[in-house]
Amino acid sequence: MKLSSRITEVLGIRFPIVQAGMAGNTTPELVATVSNSGGLGSIGAGYFTPERLEKEITYVQQLTDLPYAVNLFVPSQKLYIPDKVEHMNAWLKPYRRAFNIEEPVLNMDETHQFNHAIDVVIEKGVPVVTFTFGIPDQITIAKLKERDITIVGTATSVDEAIANESAGVDAIIAQGSEAGGHRGSFTVTGSNQTPLIGTMSIVPQIADAIDIPIIASGGIMDGRGLVASIVLGAEAIQMGTAFLTTEESGASSLYKNMIQQSKETDTVITNVFTGKPARGIDNDFIHKMDEYNDDIPDYPIQNQLTSAIRKEAAQKGDAQWTHLWSGQSPRLAQNVSATLLIQRIINESKALLNS
Amino acid sequence: MKLSSRITEVLGIRFPIVQAGMAGNTTPELVATVSNSGGLGSIGAGYFTPERLEKEITYVQQLTDLPYAVNLFVPSQKLYIPDKVEHMNAWLKPYRRAFNIEEPVLNMDETHQFNHAIDVVIEKGVPVVTFTFGIPDQITIAKLKERDITIVGTATSVDEAIANESAGVDAIIAQGSEAGGHRGSFTVTGSNQTPLIGTMSIVPQIADAIDIPIIASGGIMDGRGLVASIVLGAEAIQMGTAFLTTEESGASSLYKNMIQQSKETDTVITNVFTGKPARGIDNDFIHKMDEYNDDIPDYPIQNQLTSAIRKEAAQKGDAQWTHLWSGQSPRLAQNVSATLLIQRIINESKALLNS
Repeated sequence: MKLSSRITEVLGIRFPIVQAGMAGNTTPELVATVSNSGGLGSIGAGYFTPERLEKEITYVQQLTDLPYAVNLFVPSQKLYIPDKVEHMNAWLKPYRRAFNIEEPVLNMDETHQFNHAIDVVIEKGVPVVTFTFGIPDQITIAKLKERDITIVGTATSVDEAIANESAGVDAIIAQGSEAGGHRGSFTVTGSNQTPLIGTMSIVPQIADAIDIPIIASGGIMDGRGLVASIVLGAEAIQMGTAFLTTEESGASSLYKNMIQQSKETDTVITNVFTGKPARGIDNDFIHKMDEYNDDIPDYPIQNQLTSAIRKEAAQKGDAQWTHLWSGQSPRLAQNVSATLLIQRIINESKALLNS
Repeated sequence: MKLSSRITEVLGIRFPIVQAGMAGNTTPELVATVSNSGGLGSIGAGYFTPERLEKEITYVQQLTDLPYAVNLFVPSQKLYIPDKVEHMNAWLKPYRRAFNIEEPVLNMDETHQFNHAIDVVIEKGVPVVTFTFGIPDQITIAKLKERDITIVGTATSVDEAIANESAGVDAIIAQGSEAGGHRGSFTVTGSNQTPLIGTMSIVPQIADAIDIPIIASGGIMDGRGLVASIVLGAEAIQMGTAFLTTEESGASSLYKNMIQQSKETDTVITNVFTGKPARGIDNDFIHKMDEYNDDIPDYPIQNQLTSAIRKEAAQKGDAQWTHLWSGQSPRLAQNVSATLLIQRIINESKALLNS
């Protein structure tokens, strides 16, 4: 077993470590530090306007000459039902009032923004694009391939992995149920649930089904997780929570502390923050929403309806009214620089491989 | 890294592979074959009367001179609410009628049966006892230790592992959320849920918290899973689903086929069969129970209420009205002898360790 393989060559990186998109929490410093330390930094651009994306890419390019990625959310099917949005707005009213926030104007044109982001990625010569929530259409894939941009998809089941491979992506992030933040799923199970397959199960089953390289994610925080993932059939790992608590991350110290003080049993899967299922630390917002007696509006509607409340709460140091994405291994989180984190993981991995 | 460590010495086995209890599906042939092949076979005695347990142990002792285990269910808190039992009996009536089955007489004395089983284990000189659903009391632990019987507990969270270690067990099965069958949990999370932590997360976090050996379980089916578990900090693995489809297992061919034809997304966690949460292949019984508008009676009440229906359905070849426990890696299940399964796992593990 070794740490370099097809994936380090394809991505042009020294170590098989990818920093997850973590929309809302990446900084150009984090992305560039990860890339400069031998991994692949990712700009979490899921919520960015094209203008913001262009700025962030320019900033990252000033900080590193090494490869980095941009993570984008593929537009997904959504239902806009005015009554349900009105109902949710009524429910959120007291919280908006408490934080002195206006009702938001919804921006429903995900596809326009996504296509514009693809144009920015091409213009700026971004080396790698990773996709969450689905597979881009064939026109988009062809455009990226024409420019030799490496395309990485996300799968939470074997079928999603096969669909990604058939569409022509270069590598696949296999997301286990331990992962923090949004589920990358774009299919449902036979019982109409979002797939929640543990990393120990999903990686070897995907490895048996496809030929392109796999990047394992979900619960991986250290050298043990990296080597275990390679043993299971992956060629690299993607980590979100592990990078969220590093010095360069954009997460607030409140949020970093919440992760470092959490137990492995403190997270839940919930769609109440954004309209899509995601794993985060349980808090009052989630409990209160348990009492909401209607469907939660689809992503990105619910995301836009709650976004300002969550931002304001986070800024005021209120951990109970904001999302606290975290995977199931918070006990392994370290508050160090991203460079030291990567060094420790590589040293631990080499020690394990030689033991 | 190597395949032998403290745990193979403590258990007196050649290979670090434990066959899970799988109450209702183990046979003396399976247990003895696993032990004779270098692993640790386990008699799944969770539902056995003391008389049945004694017979099974005697049979296993005739088939092997090597160590084996008995798996027992620790009696747990339960509420017997006559109205709720009556309601469930009314709901189950049409199914009992269809299968020509009488309403069962409930046997509520778990503790008496458990204590009797401990006496049998001591009298018969069983070398290893594994416990599910809790930690036995100190009197029981002292009795077993006095006879040099190795005690193995089950944990689904770090706190459960620490509690097991403090109680004096010799090793701990760390059960990840991928595992098929009953959750071994005996605590709930902050949000009152059964812990469902993926194997990739639970093993290293428990390894950092305790000093006694860990047996990893959940989603492990082959050499990749064994070596990955050792990398994560375990010293052995326990497998249920992988042994369920072997030739010596007591599972019906219907059940074996269902597992081998399943996808990783086909299982759900449900308490409708026994009153305790367990992972199994989704079917009509589970769907129908979704419509039941009352609490499911606690284990072992619900188990006894539905047991005859499930047995009769299984015997009639009806996979929709029986429990089909399976972990999240059914695509990796093999229908071979337990001996060949163990040989393959060890060969694959050695190849991985030397690669």
